[in-house]
Amino acid sequence: MKISHIEHLGIAVKSLEEAIPFWENILGFKCYSIEEVADQKVKTAFFKVGQTKIELLEPTSEESTIAKFIANRGEGVHHVAYAVENIEEALAEAESKGVRLIDKTPRRGAEGLTIAFLHPKSTGGVLTELCEDKNGK
Amino acid sequence: MKISHIEHLGIAVKSLEEAIPFWENILGFKCYSIEEVADQKVKTAFFKVGQTKIELLEPTSEESTIAKFIANRGEGVHHVAYAVENIEEALAEAESKGVRLIDKTPRRGAEGLTIAFLHPKSTGGVLTELCEDKNGK
Repeated sequence: MKISHIEHLGIAVKSLEEAIPFWENILGFKCYSIEEVADQKVKTAFFKVGQTKIELLEPTSEESTIAKFIANRGEGVHHVAYAVENIEEALAEAESKGVRLIDKTPRRGAEGLTIAFLHPKSTGGVLTELCEDKNGK
Repeated sequence: MKISHIEHLGIAVKSLEEAIPFWENILGFKCYSIEEVADQKVKTAFFKVGQTKIELLEPTSEESTIAKFIANRGEGVHHVAYAVENIEEALAEAESKGVRLIDKTPRRGAEGLTIAFLHPKSTGGVLTELCEDKNGK
C-alpha cells in the first residue's frame, strides 16, 4: 500500500485535564480541538507536530476500549494511524495478504477522515489505523 | 521547547525476523538498517515513513529494558522521539518545569543523534525521547 506519513498517534490517558499540560507547557504543542466521540466513549484532544497529529483519548465510560487498554497496559500509545493514498485498495491488499481486519469496510473517523483499523494480532502488537482524507476529493 | 517533528517511534518486538515482514510486505516500508546496540541489549531495524522513522527493538537479553517492557505490557510502542532544535536548552527547560529526566545530560544515540530521555512518570505514561541531529553542525 502507498503510505505517505504517520497521520496521528492515538494516546490513551486517564484524564485530558491532567495530561494536556505536559503536551502544551513542556513540549510546546497547542491543543487545537477537544471533541467528545460518543459512540467510541472517549473525549479527544488534538495537537499537531510536523506531519503528525497527537490524539489524546480519555475514556468516558468503563466500557470504553480505551478504559480497558489503560486497565490492562497503563496509559500510553494506543494506536498508530497512517495516511494512505487509497483506503479501499489498502484494505483489500492487507486482507489478501492475510491481515485480520477490524473494519472490513472504511468508516468515518475523527476530523472527517475515512478510516479503518487492522487487528493488532496481525500487526506485531501495534493497533494500526489506515486513514484517507477524502475531503475535497 | 522547539520541536519540528516526530523523529522516530520505538516499537518493542519479540523478534525482528517475525516482525519485519508486516512492515515491509503489508505497509510497504523498506528496512534500510539493522544494527545491534550492545549496551542497550537490543537489535534494531529502521524504516522511514514521511518525516518519521520506525525503530523496531528486539531484546538480546532478558536483562534488556525492552524484554521487561514486553513482559509487562506486551509488544507495542515503547517510546516516542521528538526532533528538537537545541537539546541542551530543551532539557534545561523540561527540568526547570519539574519534569523528571532519565538523562541529565545528552548522550549519543542511534544514527549519531544526540539524545536524552524524559521519565514516563512526568510525561503521561509515554516514554519520551528528545533528539538533536548535531551532525554537520
